[in-house]
Amino acid sequence: MHLRVINPNTTASMTRKIGEAASRIAAPGTQVSATNPASGPVSIESHFDEAVSAVGVADEIRAGERDQVDAYIIACFGDPGLLAARELTRAPVIGIAEAAFHMATLISTRFSIVTTLGRTGIIAEHLLQSYGFAHHCRRVRAAEIPVLDLEDNGASALDRVIAECRRARDEDGIGAIVLGCGGMADLTGEIRDAVGLPIVEGVTAAVKLAEALVGLGLGTSKHGDLAFPRPKPFSGEFERFSHLNID
Amino acid sequence: MHLRVINPNTTASMTRKIGEAASRIAAPGTQVSATNPASGPVSIESHFDEAVSAVGVADEIRAGERDQVDAYIIACFGDPGLLAARELTRAPVIGIAEAAFHMATLISTRFSIVTTLGRTGIIAEHLLQSYGFAHHCRRVRAAEIPVLDLEDNGASALDRVIAECRRARDEDGIGAIVLGCGGMADLTGEIRDAVGLPIVEGVTAAVKLAEALVGLGLGTSKHGDLAFPRPKPFSGEFERFSHLNID
Amino acid sequence: MHLRVINPNTTASMTRKIGEAASRIAAPGTQVSATNPASGPVSIESHFDEAVSAVGVADEIRAGERDQVDAYIIACFGDPGLLAARELTRAPVIGIAEAAFHMATLISTRFSIVTTLGRTGIIAEHLLQSYGFAHHCRRVRAAEIPVLDLEDNGASALDRVIAECRRARDEDGIGAIVLGCGGMADLTGEIRDAVGLPIVEGVTAAVKLAEALVGLGLGTSKHGDLAFPRPKPFSGEFERFSHLNID
Amino acid sequence: MHLRVINPNTTASMTRKIGEAASRIAAPGTQVSATNPASGPVSIESHFDEAVSAVGVADEIRAGERDQVDAYIIACFGDPGLLAARELTRAPVIGIAEAAFHMATLISTRFSIVTTLGRTGIIAEHLLQSYGFAHHCRRVRAAEIPVLDLEDNGASALDRVIAECRRARDEDGIGAIVLGCGGMADLTGEIRDAVGLPIVEGVTAAVKLAEALVGLGLGTSKHGDLAFPRPKPFSGEFERFSHLNID
Amino acid sequence: MHLRVINPNTTASMTRKIGEAASRIAAPGTQVSATNPASGPVSIESHFDEAVSAVGVADEIRAGERDQVDAYIIACFGDPGLLAARELTRAPVIGIAEAAFHMATLISTRFSIVTTLGRTGIIAEHLLQSYGFAHHCRRVRAAEIPVLDLEDNGASALDRVIAECRRARDEDGIGAIVLGCGGMADLTGEIRDAVGLPIVEGVTAAVKLAEALVGLGLGTSKHGDLAFPRPKPFSGEFERFSHLNID
Amino acid sequence: MHLRVINPNTTASMTRKIGEAASRIAAPGTQVSATNPASGPVSIESHFDEAVSAVGVADEIRAGERDQVDAYIIACFGDPGLLAARELTRAPVIGIAEAAFHMATLISTRFSIVTTLGRTGIIAEHLLQSYGFAHHCRRVRAAEIPVLDLEDNGASALDRVIAECRRARDEDGIGAIVLGCGGMADLTGEIRDAVGLPIVEGVTAAVKLAEALVGLGLGTSKHGDLAFPRPKPFSGEFERFSHLNID
Repeated sequence: MHLRVINPNTTASMTRKIGEAASRIAAPGTQVSATNPASGPVSIESHFDEAVSAVGVADEIRAGERDQVDAYIIACFGDPGLLAARELTRAPVIGIAEAAFHMATLISTRFSIVTTLGRTGIIAEHLLQSYGFAHHCRRVRAAEIPVLDLEDNGASALDRVIAECRRARDEDGIGAIVLGCGGMADLTGEIRDAVGLPIVEGVTAAVKLAEALVGLGLGTSKHGDLAFPRPKPFSGEFERFSHLNID
Repeated sequence: MHLRVINPNTTASMTRKIGEAASRIAAPGTQVSATNPASGPVSIESHFDEAVSAVGVADEIRAGERDQVDAYIIACFGDPGLLAARELTRAPVIGIAEAAFHMATLISTRFSIVTTLGRTGIIAEHLLQSYGFAHHCRRVRAAEIPVLDLEDNGASALDRVIAECRRARDEDGIGAIVLGCGGMADLTGEIRDAVGLPIVEGVTAAVKLAEALVGLGLGTSKHGDLAFPRPKPFSGEFERFSHLNID
Repeated sequence: MHLRVINPNTTASMTRKIGEAASRIAAPGTQVSATNPASGPVSIESHFDEAVSAVGVADEIRAGERDQVDAYIIACFGDPGLLAARELTRAPVIGIAEAAFHMATLISTRFSIVTTLGRTGIIAEHLLQSYGFAHHCRRVRAAEIPVLDLEDNGASALDRVIAECRRARDEDGIGAIVLGCGGMADLTGEIRDAVGLPIVEGVTAAVKLAEALVGLGLGTSKHGDLAFPRPKPFSGEFERFSHLNID
Repeated sequence: MHLRVINPNTTASMTRKIGEAASRIAAPGTQVSATNPASGPVSIESHFDEAVSAVGVADEIRAGERDQVDAYIIACFGDPGLLAARELTRAPVIGIAEAAFHMATLISTRFSIVTTLGRTGIIAEHLLQSYGFAHHCRRVRAAEIPVLDLEDNGASALDRVIAECRRARDEDGIGAIVLGCGGMADLTGEIRDAVGLPIVEGVTAAVKLAEALVGLGLGTSKHGDLAFPRPKPFSGEFERFSHLNID
Repeated sequence: MHLRVINPNTTASMTRKIGEAASRIAAPGTQVSATNPASGPVSIESHFDEAVSAVGVADEIRAGERDQVDAYIIACFGDPGLLAARELTRAPVIGIAEAAFHMATLISTRFSIVTTLGRTGIIAEHLLQSYGFAHHCRRVRAAEIPVLDLEDNGASALDRVIAECRRARDEDGIGAIVLGCGGMADLTGEIRDAVGLPIVEGVTAAVKLAEALVGLGLGTSKHGDLAFPRPKPFSGEFERFSHLNID
Repeated sequence: MHLRVINPNTTASMTRKIGEAASRIAAPGTQVSATNPASGPVSIESHFDEAVSAVGVADEIRAGERDQVDAYIIACFGDPGLLAARELTRAPVIGIAEAAFHMATLISTRFSIVTTLGRTGIIAEHLLQSYGFAHHCRRVRAAEIPVLDLEDNGASALDRVIAECRRARDEDGIGAIVLGCGGMADLTGEIRDAVGLPIVEGVTAAVKLAEALVGLGLGTSKHGDLAFPRPKPFSGEFERFSHLNID
């Protein structure tokens, strides 16, 4: 199967890192390709960044359909554009936040989230409520590091994430920690070793869920709410979405 | 005060109609201007349409800031891009779905929604849950008319909406009906007369809520979650959002 | 329009203060009159005080109907007698707690409440749950001042309210603060200046919501749950409510 | 022990009937006295009726304290004035709606309610949500009979209640039915025989819960939210509540 | 009536203690017998202990049916095997956790739980959610004592429980405390004296609820979900459950 | 990896069928073994059947630990003994109900369940609430066939399941159907062909989730709630669980 990992931001180094993390965890028969939109923000740290990135995600799904991709991952912890992406394909589409939440509930009764900036905590809270996991999550914590510090100041950023994870372990009464940023995909092992608790990371979790769905022959339902969008004119810079002819 | 009504789709006739409905209801001191993005879908009937339109909404907020707009309305029932829009301004931003829900709970204990297409019902359900109004809404109903039929086949579309509203009145045990599409803004009076129940329409409700917030000196909080986005590079067709310098 | 602000307690100085706060915020075309029941408690700080005051609220609605009032505000943070009051009139009736909650959710994702006495916190919690705003409110805080201290020891009471608001700002991860007592209506400006966060006060919020509903031609639904009460005999000191002939 | 059953409406024949039902079910050591306020509505079928009756309930608690009553029952299905009543005494106070809900969840996983008028259904819904039983109740049904028809047209009213109970039994997937009116207290046996399902009636349920609490030495907590109200002046017809000196 | 108290663990000294506590609180006409399964764990401190003990509970219900028992109590705070037990009898079956929760909500608006080991807190949380009491409980606290320490180190265990109860009283904003272990049944008085707050203990609460249901003529509904299990073969050590012929 | 599928009932033909369905879907590197307890019910159709089967599940986990199993599936739709099983091992343990729910939410916004007997619907409802998926499930439906009819009257049972699935498809506004019984594991393909909607079956879903967790290096957390049970004496027929020495 061909698995496409979409990094919704435009930072190629992060795309590469995420793609490598995905490849390492992928099953032998899974071919992983990692992309990011040509247009969009270099990192996603607000509702606004999310909203803009959702268009890039849609573009990448369109590109993936041409490449006959079998499953997609949206590799940003806010799952930007997830339902829109699902409408555009019969293939499964997995967000890394939902992937991590699902997996965390399978190995623990309660978990906490450690994310980057405090201001993105509300995004996680909204997802927890919408997905149904609010009562499984004890606390949303932030290490207060900008996303790109994970690229540029790896060591120092890692220290802060580990410190926050330890506080979660000691104070929250939890069984597992969910890492709240796609940019932490390559840090999971080190964090796990330092914290001594199951650490659930979304990119890797999503790879496995995508493989699971493809293995089951399950894709996004085209019956009802997630059916292909009705073809219609789009104007201006989005004219490329006009009269989508998908099936 | 200057109130900007943003129609997130690109159908100018609907923008005009919505703007007129807003103007009619506006207080004497309120100047209403209605716009729509240059780029985007002609109607919004899916998660995908919503996601694309959110960028146009952001553009219109940016334009509004240059025009020193005092308050914004997002005139599509899914409230696309609402939180992103709020991050971009100190002014209040109101979605027409939330506006209608708030108003409906002030005059009744339970309401139903009558929207256009059944497939958009899930969008209303998600908003009800996120805003906290799920238990106030008895049922989300669809007249099963495409949005633009409200433009092109007004009479027939109106008949179907009225018929569905009457079913809601007779079967749902409700005190009010929320109209689930910005394109119904000019039909409220006729529907009210035909149904005999308070009919809450979002565009007009949002005008009044926007005036209320401005009157109170309240705007979007810049403390915490809805602070201005951190300035950063955007690439490609979204380069215009780079290094936003807002205050 | 004629807006009647009902202070459910019998402290005339507070009625005056609330009425002045309402008048200051009212639109030019809005005539504000403030009243309080002749019978009832001097302040409302318990379920019992609330229950007794609800009769006075009903009396004031009855008086308002004779005066052809266009909209009512119940100016006590527990919204005492709100649904009963709605049954007695076609006009809109707004509680100041609900008004503040609605407005706070339009400008922030999460808010805290700062109220007077800790024992009244449960009243706010019950309202948050019933209205649907429980997950929008991070914390209900009390400055531990009796309501009438806001009259009698203004400066010291103000200091305590400001101190508690600052704690909310610094500890709760919020975007706005809701003031939890009608008696704080004249303090909003000072608190806002001292705290530096949007401060939502219920009396002023309710004035604007009442104007909004009247502007929309929306009043309390007489279809279903909030229809006029069935006329019937009342005995004893409540004989005045017998055979209400309302329409 | 001395158990006081307070019928919140002023219809003496109903008070008598309720008192007899309570006496029949009471344990040998329980002395039952039934009262109703001198002032208030003859029946309770709206939020307004409820609000007015709450004052009468408070008066009856005050009278009960003078009579050294050991436990109170509020015998109207909306539990009017329940929390206010609890503040006025160290004795336990039980509402018949809550009593019935508690008992129903102990003998079934899901129940339905059969009440009098459809418009009072919202009161039951609010109580279910506040008490935490919303997901245990499948449906709130109304026989559409005014409360006093249970007095005046017993046979015909009984027929309608039984018919609605049978529909609940056959359509709702339930294990028990809760009767939604104190006026049905004497009909329980006949309904049970006709319907063939456990029928939970609130007055009798409350008698047993009150005996249970007294037997346990448990009364209303005076720590925190339900402590005695702060003594204060009341004016006008409620002057009798001034400077309550309770302990 | 004959009330059977089932201690789900096999520690006879605890069974005796629980039985005595039940007898002391029982009404004159109530005959209490206390039993425990012949097979099972000596204490219940995990999901696993609970699961195993549920079989013993079922055995004890079967034995009780032969003894024509009128009501059952499951005297472990996790209410192990409660719904299974209900299926096996027409008599009422009460768990001590649910009993304590119900009683606590009748005398306070909010309570906290003080249990034995922190790891069993999740069991209480699951029950609170399932029963509908989650929002009535402020906090689940643990004294961090193994269950059998209540037998073997009574004084020291009591000290720790009292200390935790005092913290709950001072920090949680509550009106009552629920004791979270059947083994605390004999300590209630001492704890109450030391803490000065209503203390709700499950065994005694359940006795009174069982008497209440029997007094009402209410037993487990055999309509729907809790009907007798369909008779069927059981193999191996559970062959004794084969072809149950219950009515 | 070695995956152990535990059929909690003792019907060997169903164990075989479930094992074959698991094997067919398993990845090349996954060795599937299917077992059932020696002791227990031949089918699971009630809370009682569930409770008894949980002991057998625990035994099978113990046996699996001796066989160095890498992951476990509990192949009954009520997920009997799931949390107990997790306490007994570091390996992941997946229930087929939770597996199906998780997968269904990844490919649709709303689903319905089609189970065997109506009386087991409550078990599914409880799981939906506990796991957090209640608002994702539109309706729990029953084909009203005993579990073993899936063995003995395959064709007729299949017809009934298909008929109920079609009703779900046409009436419920859903995107996917969850099959509510492990005994339907071999029917998925036929049902999918007949219904034309994604059909999510729990055994196969759980196989893929188990492979996913093992692939991620994630097992049941031993930190906190799901740590190994404290070793202690068990008496009688459960003496084999005494002093468990697990690590």
